[in-house]
Amino acid sequence: MTIQPLDHVPTREDILATAEAIRPLIHRTPVLTCETLNRMSGASLFFKCENFQKIGAFKMRGAASAALRLTEEQRRRGIATHSSGNHAQAVARAAQVLGIPAYIVMPENAPEIKKKATEGYGARIIFCAPTQAAREEALERVVADTGAWFIHPYNDYNVIAGQATSALELIEDTPGLDALIAPVGGGGLMSGTALSTRYFAADARVYGAEPERVNDAWRSFHSGHIETNASTDTIADGLRTNLGEKTFAILREHLEEIYTVSEEGILEAMHLIWERMKIIIEPSCAVPFAAVLAHPEVFRGKRIGMILTGGNVDFKEVWK
Amino acid sequence: MTIQPLDHVPTREDILATAEAIRPLIHRTPVLTCETLNRMSGASLFFKCENFQKIGAFKMRGAASAALRLTEEQRRRGIATHSSGNHAQAVARAAQVLGIPAYIVMPENAPEIKKKATEGYGARIIFCAPTQAAREEALERVVADTGAWFIHPYNDYNVIAGQATSALELIEDTPGLDALIAPVGGGGLMSGTALSTRYFAADARVYGAEPERVNDAWRSFHSGHIETNASTDTIADGLRTNLGEKTFAILREHLEEIYTVSEEGILEAMHLIWERMKIIIEPSCAVPFAAVLAHPEVFRGKRIGMILTGGNVDFKEVWK
Repeated sequence: MTIQPLDHVPTREDILATAEAIRPLIHRTPVLTCETLNRMSGASLFFKCENFQKIGAFKMRGAASAALRLTEEQRRRGIATHSSGNHAQAVARAAQVLGIPAYIVMPENAPEIKKKATEGYGARIIFCAPTQAAREEALERVVADTGAWFIHPYNDYNVIAGQATSALELIEDTPGLDALIAPVGGGGLMSGTALSTRYFAADARVYGAEPERVNDAWRSFHSGHIETNASTDTIADGLRTNLGEKTFAILREHLEEIYTVSEEGILEAMHLIWERMKIIIEPSCAVPFAAVLAHPEVFRGKRIGMILTGGNVDFKEVWK
Repeated sequence: MTIQPLDHVPTREDILATAEAIRPLIHRTPVLTCETLNRMSGASLFFKCENFQKIGAFKMRGAASAALRLTEEQRRRGIATHSSGNHAQAVARAAQVLGIPAYIVMPENAPEIKKKATEGYGARIIFCAPTQAAREEALERVVADTGAWFIHPYNDYNVIAGQATSALELIEDTPGLDALIAPVGGGGLMSGTALSTRYFAADARVYGAEPERVNDAWRSFHSGHIETNASTDTIADGLRTNLGEKTFAILREHLEEIYTVSEEGILEAMHLIWERMKIIIEPSCAVPFAAVLAHPEVFRGKRIGMILTGGNVDFKEVWK
């Protein structure tokens, strides 16, 4: 199945075609439930386990969706991105499966484990100073030198269409959801989740969740323009990013509300999922569950679909 | 379905009847695979995830199997055991579901988390000094006072028949296994696994795995009589126990071999499963995978069924 590059907000048909096209590159992840967490929250929770996804996070969906839309000529030149996180591994892995080059710009102080994982997928890493300006400059140089295609981590309709397939599967596997909830970082997963909810579970509400300490999305949602964070000091390292104009526009239109949660709430929610569900999730991933625990008045008695975004924890940190 | 107390090594029909009877009290746990761990081991590994079982461990099967065999009169008087581990929670939970009393003898220095979990299931805890003699004495007193039925953690055919249902499900869900492997502590799971392999996958071999530091089962297997451990200093806290005469007789007859593994090997195997499979397993649970990694000459190219026994990790220890 071939899919074309998207220059518009993904439609219902775009998302269905994307789901079909990326199927060979991803896992259809399971939806798990847990009686104890249902009892604690007073809700019926359906956890979509993207921590079991290829490369350990939902990002594989967006990278595959973007990479599959390139022409033969573009594929020959390869794909590129700047990231030290899950998106880097997703782009590297998508390139490896498609047999094309991948160039990943990474700050020189990125954790050894991330460098190794990305190299393990056969990508070439280009190191830069650990600043946003140095990253962007290094990426521009790589793109100019190689002609590689830049896959943005979130502000890209091709990526959004890929991330939307997680909620699509969750909705297919869980009839009668009252609401879906996902974490908001750059807004790629959140906007995809919002679109799939509108298209495939029209009666359900869709909520975002975000750490209090990087509440740029909550402020943007209420002020009407994109706000930024003064500090990025949160344990939820996947959610430090600001929104892009494409993701923000989708969130403004479709989101019911964004709930913010404390650092303590995030840690407690993560520990509960580790202890009770016996699965590994990363801190960013625990933010929606923390929001559900903090707002029983919104979620009690409801059937809630929740996307567990990833499981890439740096255990060297945990065990040192 | 009613099942009768067993005074003999469980037969094929006993195990099938037990599986049927305990079904309402347990989860049918999933069998997971992981490409990366297959590549690392050179084998095709099928992980039976008892860490997702009720109370977080396979012990629920044996406790349910034993409790369901009591007469109405016996049930009224309740069930008892001594344990500070998964067996305590399994007996407490089985009693809770059946609406009967449970009495758990526990050393007064048992971790707070285990006390709370056991009390949470409505069991009465009787504390004793932290010695084997004090435990047994306290248990005898409880049984004399209450008339409760003692469920031994492993040296009991009713318990063995319950533990055997895990391998039965694994074999049903995974055609063409060349071998099964499980950890050996007291030998309840191991002897159940051996019996189910003989009955339901007659061509497959069955192996045990044990920490080098508590290699009593390996020594017993080769000497022909039950050996004990001088020290119990291993991270695999579920495997410190010695064999019982019932479990030992089954192991001697059916096991191919027992492999012993180092403490470093156990930790490495546990970390690999956490990192790569994104699931929580307890240290004892990693011992068979450590054995597979240490003995590629035995396992390479084979389809191996492996029982992941439980996921009850004391995170307070990990995170302190």
